[in-house]
Amino acid sequence: MGTEADQGHLQLAPESFLSTDLINEIQREGIDSGRRTLIRGAIAAATAAIAVPSVRAADDPDIVNLPSWTRSLGKPVVANPYGQPSPFEANIVRRQSPGLTRTDQSSVSFTPLQNLFGMITPSGLHFERHHQGWVDIDPRRHRLMINGLVKTPLVFTMEELLRMPSVSRIHFLECGANTGLEWGNVAVPTVQYTHGMLSASEFTGVPVSLLLERAGIDRQRAKVLLAEGADGSSMTRTINLENALDDALVAYGQNGEMLRPENGYPLRLVVPGVQGVSWVKWLRRLEVGDEPWATKDEAAHYVDMMPDGTHRQYTSIQEAKSVITAPSGGQKLLKHGYYSVTGLAWSGRGTVEKVEVSVDGGRNWRPARVEGPVLPKALTRFQYDWVWQGEETLLQSRVTDSTGYAQPSRAELIGVRGTRSIYHNNAIQTWRVGSDGEVHNVQLG
Amino acid sequence: MGTEADQGHLQLAPESFLSTDLINEIQREGIDSGRRTLIRGAIAAATAAIAVPSVRAADDPDIVNLPSWTRSLGKPVVANPYGQPSPFEANIVRRQSPGLTRTDQSSVSFTPLQNLFGMITPSGLHFERHHQGWVDIDPRRHRLMINGLVKTPLVFTMEELLRMPSVSRIHFLECGANTGLEWGNVAVPTVQYTHGMLSASEFTGVPVSLLLERAGIDRQRAKVLLAEGADGSSMTRTINLENALDDALVAYGQNGEMLRPENGYPLRLVVPGVQGVSWVKWLRRLEVGDEPWATKDEAAHYVDMMPDGTHRQYTSIQEAKSVITAPSGGQKLLKHGYYSVTGLAWSGRGTVEKVEVSVDGGRNWRPARVEGPVLPKALTRFQYDWVWQGEETLLQSRVTDSTGYAQPSRAELIGVRGTRSIYHNNAIQTWRVGSDGEVHNVQLG
Repeated sequence: MGTEADQGHLQLAPESFLSTDLINEIQREGIDSGRRTLIRGAIAAATAAIAVPSVRAADDPDIVNLPSWTRSLGKPVVANPYGQPSPFEANIVRRQSPGLTRTDQSSVSFTPLQNLFGMITPSGLHFERHHQGWVDIDPRRHRLMINGLVKTPLVFTMEELLRMPSVSRIHFLECGANTGLEWGNVAVPTVQYTHGMLSASEFTGVPVSLLLERAGIDRQRAKVLLAEGADGSSMTRTINLENALDDALVAYGQNGEMLRPENGYPLRLVVPGVQGVSWVKWLRRLEVGDEPWATKDEAAHYVDMMPDGTHRQYTSIQEAKSVITAPSGGQKLLKHGYYSVTGLAWSGRGTVEKVEVSVDGGRNWRPARVEGPVLPKALTRFQYDWVWQGEETLLQSRVTDSTGYAQPSRAELIGVRGTRSIYHNNAIQTWRVGSDGEVHNVQLG
Repeated sequence: MGTEADQGHLQLAPESFLSTDLINEIQREGIDSGRRTLIRGAIAAATAAIAVPSVRAADDPDIVNLPSWTRSLGKPVVANPYGQPSPFEANIVRRQSPGLTRTDQSSVSFTPLQNLFGMITPSGLHFERHHQGWVDIDPRRHRLMINGLVKTPLVFTMEELLRMPSVSRIHFLECGANTGLEWGNVAVPTVQYTHGMLSASEFTGVPVSLLLERAGIDRQRAKVLLAEGADGSSMTRTINLENALDDALVAYGQNGEMLRPENGYPLRLVVPGVQGVSWVKWLRRLEVGDEPWATKDEAAHYVDMMPDGTHRQYTSIQEAKSVITAPSGGQKLLKHGYYSVTGLAWSGRGTVEKVEVSVDGGRNWRPARVEGPVLPKALTRFQYDWVWQGEETLLQSRVTDSTGYAQPSRAELIGVRGTRSIYHNNAIQTWRVGSDGEVHNVQLG
């Protein structure tokens, strides 16, 4: 599953930075709602009594001698006209899972969630899932066709699309197969591989509704859209018209700049809340139709095998899900004491209503702090105060979304879906912290 | 002022995509509030009557022959473990303004605002302003000291900071000298050079308030902070304690990953709403004091020269400001017809309340569409429907922020501030569209 040498840009090696009294209080009381308010509303006040453990300067050989960068002239501006990460972050990259697919052109690379912060994924670390490799398209030669049940078929150049009214919105993008290996007894080691087919960007583009109206969509008969890509696989997917007219975009922008080639440059379909395969990359055509096409990419793939032997097809909304990204599998807690447990929550049906964390394998749940702005069909970051004294611990998170739906346990999910699925696993994830501080992926129930 | 060969990733070359009736309506009525509601609430309905101008497929030689990327196997996943922009976007880079400073280590590179979308700046295109060049700091050797009027001075390692509670927030960062050349009669050609010392990111870090409380700040005497960088210039700035305790962060994260080296890796001070020079990069020390330090970096620089010969020092809040980024100087409108005029608005004192656009040099103003989420001390994207029939046009935008403050005209600003300033120019920007479609920077009043 790739080299796990550097799962953290810095190993988690906490000393307690809270006073013994506060540690005892947290252990005794948990983070109840009063305490949460205290922390959110007035961090300063809440920590006024905190003791002081850090290293004193004079005791630290690393800072007695000034480092070279403090004694020299640095590099000029535009040394990198397009900037790059620090060389000290060279291990924070997308990683492939060798052997997962027959060729590297139809494979997956995973986002290093364990190393990321906030709600935006850097475009350079956005996960990849291709069906016939990725391509460098010349935007001057790229076209978008609108055809099918429309009054007049249209073909747009990129120039024409770029001068139309646009919208920008932050959304998550999750592959339907994300967390797929967890259906079986294969507990892959890290959150990069369990949940790393998940990224989020600010996307910019033209509303699909505007393009369809311009072509004169036949509102009486139209039920679905076919989205088709310009790569060698001519990737095709059926999109419900309801989703398309609601908030779908023909997007050219990602995190403020043009899309990256491996993410569909110069054009991809954005269907917020829907599984990633429907966000067709290198988009060249939208055909309006009256029934699903059952193309090769949707008849054989992205189908859920149910316990009674039937297939569930066109299941496309990514249900509410959450995961703790740190501490997570492959990391090691080097010392006892305080940790800010952090992770991500999301729902394809709306916003995150609340996130809860359990440190005892699901017997007790306490609310996590949820970070704003909480946006629809976007990632939401959460944090939870935790003090580890060396005991074996089962860490879990659970999200409830704005529809009232709560993320299921693994046992609950399997009860409904069986174990023959590949796609749409949104079960609660469990990380076991051993008494040696090592964190492992375990499957409960 | 650098090569302007590629001011747009695609030249703006619109044909009208609105019907003649709708064009006439927009010209006659402008975009009044009813029309705005129509567009925002129901884009589909508003454009149902639109005529159909686009190229038909059979007439377009570029799409008769399928391009190579549609007939081949593409590149494998993790061809780039850390992804890069398309080679077709190679001209979208930060650009230096040669001769602006004596050495390239104390210079500026500007963000290509004319090519960007949404509210996030890609980290690779974040502007640079260094005082002694940028450096690659080894995070294992970096320390942050808290000293001065505190009970116990502290020194933190990066590991210690990374395990503390953090917050992530989207904020703009603007150099106090942004738009500085416009004080004189130097109308630089493009928005990259007039306004490109402006970027915005999602920053992640530890609240300064938490660190100060932990060190036991002397609340009776403390009035200011000194922030000090670890580069060769030992950059130092006085920060008001009020700003520091309000929403300032000791940040390690930018747009989901660790800060870029030229933006302060591994640690920079984030002081939302305050001019960029106070966001000290490579932050190594915060000293609590009872009066401003008047260090070399604040006594001689970032001082406003007033008309009466006095100096205005420690002026630090970036007042409300906006600018149209497309069409903008150096771009050319190749055809008559519809344009979505777009730009950015921001305020160091809160949120954007409204943005107005004038197409007649400021005689008439009409509301622009403002894109959400509208966040405090962040960039807000606006758009405005405009039909150009070849007439010479003066394009302007004006923001009003949540305090009720409205962006001043150039004449109003000079009336108060004179013309001897370098810093804090937030005047309304004017772009003149000539009858040949070329867009130039002009100074009114």
